[in-house]
Amino acid sequence: MATMAALFIKTPNRSCSFPKTHKTHFTSPFNLSISSVAQPKTHSRTRISCGLIDPDGGKLVELVVDESQKGTKKRQALSLPQIKLSKIDLQWVHVLSEGWASPLKGFMRESQFLQTLHFNSIRLEDGSFANMSVPIVLAIDDSQKNQIGGSTSVALVDSKDNPVAILSGIEIYKHVKEERIARTWGTIAPGLPYVEQAITNAGNWLIGGDLEVIEPIKYHDGLDRLRLSPAELREEFMRRKADAVFAFQLRNPVHNGHALLMTDTRRRLLEMGYKNPVLLLHPLGGYTKADDVPLSWRMRQHEKVLEDGVLDPETTVISIFPSPMHYAGPTEVQWHAKARINAGANFYIVGRDPAGMSHPVEKRDLYDADHGKKVLSMAPGLERLNILPFKVAAYDKTQSKMAFFDPSRPEDFLFISGTKMRTLAKNGENPPNGFMCPGGWQVLVEYYDSLAHTENGRVPEPVPA
Amino acid sequence: MATMAALFIKTPNRSCSFPKTHKTHFTSPFNLSISSVAQPKTHSRTRISCGLIDPDGGKLVELVVDESQKGTKKRQALSLPQIKLSKIDLQWVHVLSEGWASPLKGFMRESQFLQTLHFNSIRLEDGSFANMSVPIVLAIDDSQKNQIGGSTSVALVDSKDNPVAILSGIEIYKHVKEERIARTWGTIAPGLPYVEQAITNAGNWLIGGDLEVIEPIKYHDGLDRLRLSPAELREEFMRRKADAVFAFQLRNPVHNGHALLMTDTRRRLLEMGYKNPVLLLHPLGGYTKADDVPLSWRMRQHEKVLEDGVLDPETTVISIFPSPMHYAGPTEVQWHAKARINAGANFYIVGRDPAGMSHPVEKRDLYDADHGKKVLSMAPGLERLNILPFKVAAYDKTQSKMAFFDPSRPEDFLFISGTKMRTLAKNGENPPNGFMCPGGWQVLVEYYDSLAHTENGRVPEPVPA
Repeated sequence: MATMAALFIKTPNRSCSFPKTHKTHFTSPFNLSISSVAQPKTHSRTRISCGLIDPDGGKLVELVVDESQKGTKKRQALSLPQIKLSKIDLQWVHVLSEGWASPLKGFMRESQFLQTLHFNSIRLEDGSFANMSVPIVLAIDDSQKNQIGGSTSVALVDSKDNPVAILSGIEIYKHVKEERIARTWGTIAPGLPYVEQAITNAGNWLIGGDLEVIEPIKYHDGLDRLRLSPAELREEFMRRKADAVFAFQLRNPVHNGHALLMTDTRRRLLEMGYKNPVLLLHPLGGYTKADDVPLSWRMRQHEKVLEDGVLDPETTVISIFPSPMHYAGPTEVQWHAKARINAGANFYIVGRDPAGMSHPVEKRDLYDADHGKKVLSMAPGLERLNILPFKVAAYDKTQSKMAFFDPSRPEDFLFISGTKMRTLAKNGENPPNGFMCPGGWQVLVEYYDSLAHTENGRVPEPVPA
Repeated sequence: MATMAALFIKTPNRSCSFPKTHKTHFTSPFNLSISSVAQPKTHSRTRISCGLIDPDGGKLVELVVDESQKGTKKRQALSLPQIKLSKIDLQWVHVLSEGWASPLKGFMRESQFLQTLHFNSIRLEDGSFANMSVPIVLAIDDSQKNQIGGSTSVALVDSKDNPVAILSGIEIYKHVKEERIARTWGTIAPGLPYVEQAITNAGNWLIGGDLEVIEPIKYHDGLDRLRLSPAELREEFMRRKADAVFAFQLRNPVHNGHALLMTDTRRRLLEMGYKNPVLLLHPLGGYTKADDVPLSWRMRQHEKVLEDGVLDPETTVISIFPSPMHYAGPTEVQWHAKARINAGANFYIVGRDPAGMSHPVEKRDLYDADHGKKVLSMAPGLERLNILPFKVAAYDKTQSKMAFFDPSRPEDFLFISGTKMRTLAKNGENPPNGFMCPGGWQVLVEYYDSLAHTENGRVPEPVPA
């Protein structure tokens, strides 16, 4: 993956400038309007970074202990009651350890959990709000609770019982599962992937506290070097002297419609007066549902897209976002956006039905396709983030390429859904010319081919990392 | 109800002073701790009233048109597409018309609805938040939507087709029922009273807009004079020169434990330095579930309690809160508190499991008994309200009266649940001496007696007003 590595070592030598006060609000799905709206600042700390947005709470939380402390903490962990982490738990430890969830300093205590469920935001000491829409919690069962007894700290261990972290100042409180699910997803219908994977069979208690992580979380899957922390991303953006960072969250293969959108966003940011807007292309790397394309294949696909020159390496940073996926639509898109603020992004591109999926029981989408961007634009704690709504891209038959949909000539456009794309790739067929670069498409065909060979076409188990 | 009428005409002649900046936070159910905590002010308008808290948004919304406009508006209404209001819809028109939901100026448009569902609060123009936790919305069905067509206004009419109000600048949007229910109640289990009464069979669209109410909403049930509007309550508190107003929401008969609590709260407010704290005893008057005691009987019971001198008429204002009941626990208690700010209350007494009920399907309470006061104490937009948590009162066998529970001698206390109370009253039995004044108890016995005689003991239909 030489191409991708190159993406974050090239540094154009441009002058540093401060971000503008532009604020973007959605108007219609077909109009990427940019307007300047005065918004209350909830945050007025002195900027110390060169044009990068401040992390939530003013300071990036980093929870990995100093190298010098490692031995002591490891020994301390061995003396504490132990909680074994699931793969998803470990991903959350990763997320917390690097400050994606700043200002959170560990798994949520009850007051944070309740604020997340009811207000999608947490009140800071200065009275302002940090956005926080999905609970980042650790479940334990009755026997683990009994085992912890009166201890004020516990050790978190991996599947091989290696100590990963210490959780101290712990608080154990009820895991009100039904309420958690209803208030996070807006339904309790059976079949929500994250719920079935991580909640239904989880313990009836949650344990919160302050986290100290013994060493950086690694997955040893060949992709660790692409998992840049918020601090590393910020350093990279600074090195490139970015004066605007626009984030693009994705969990699917990149097609030319996405590429068009990202290129067009940069053009518009330049028009707004920014000198060096940098794209953070940020595929989600944690738990995804079984019928999503696994991370390793997606990264191969992204590599081909980049090799093809569809995106400019000089102004693109690709990295993996370690969070698990909730598929919680308007609630989750806030998390996706908030985490990118912590990584230095001050613009966030939001599409149709972000983090959405089909209703698990009824024949409809779970969320209204427009609610995500509406909720995002109104969310407490995201006032500093500029929301860039998607223009709808579709395949323009008259140009044989992906283009922004023109509602005056709908008959010229072809919408290629994810389902349609998957069906074509599964059957080894090609999409229309210009939908995706041939190298990228070939990776998808190979992926579905590998499924057919190794599993007789059955969809594999979800791949958490 | 001479006694109750007297309660809001007596005006002690005391000097006017300004409210303190005390802020109360819950600590434990047994400890009514009062501490002074600096809290961010989201609101910094000049006070124009004598010590009363400002309404949300700075100005009390009043939507009843001027007498001089009545005829014109009535004629205008007759020319518009008509929407017939249910009893609960009419109660919401009442609530909106008098400004209980200030700064709302009508049924919610989609942006307000989404903010309510996701954030339990609405962002004001100055960037601050007003609390708003339950959707105040009006549902219409497909045929009504078609009938409205391109009209920008509609007339709202009562069951006899009399025009009640005009809704203008209308916006029609999807009634996402499952999400509304899940995010408001934290469950979608069948059997939630308000849901079955007002949502399940309601239309699939919501219509929002600005409300102009043609004349004050009246129910002609002999209780209208006890339905004081926020403006009237504020006038009354001003007339009494109240320097603190503490609100007590209830939907059940008052027993001596409640009375003890209210008396004790006043004592504590005096200790804090207030000169004339006034109690707003504020029974909910809108829709309640079938097995709650109907409003008319509750008001008779309250009258007897007051006649008995359990509460001091000089420092008590009794009035009816016109809102329908959601039974939505931690979400709804915010609405109950917020509405009382608009009526001038700056202290709010909150008990165990406020607005809670049994889970409609599982054998447990729907909400954790402590979540209500926790959520209330953290809610955006309620920073200016002082939350006074209940101390638990129980029947002290050693004193033969209701007293604050003393955890050091639990064996001396008897907890008389609502179910126990109802069973005793139904059987014509008496509770222990000192639980409730005999006159008040007699009203309950008569109520259940009337049920037994008229309906063979069947629980009656819910009585919405």
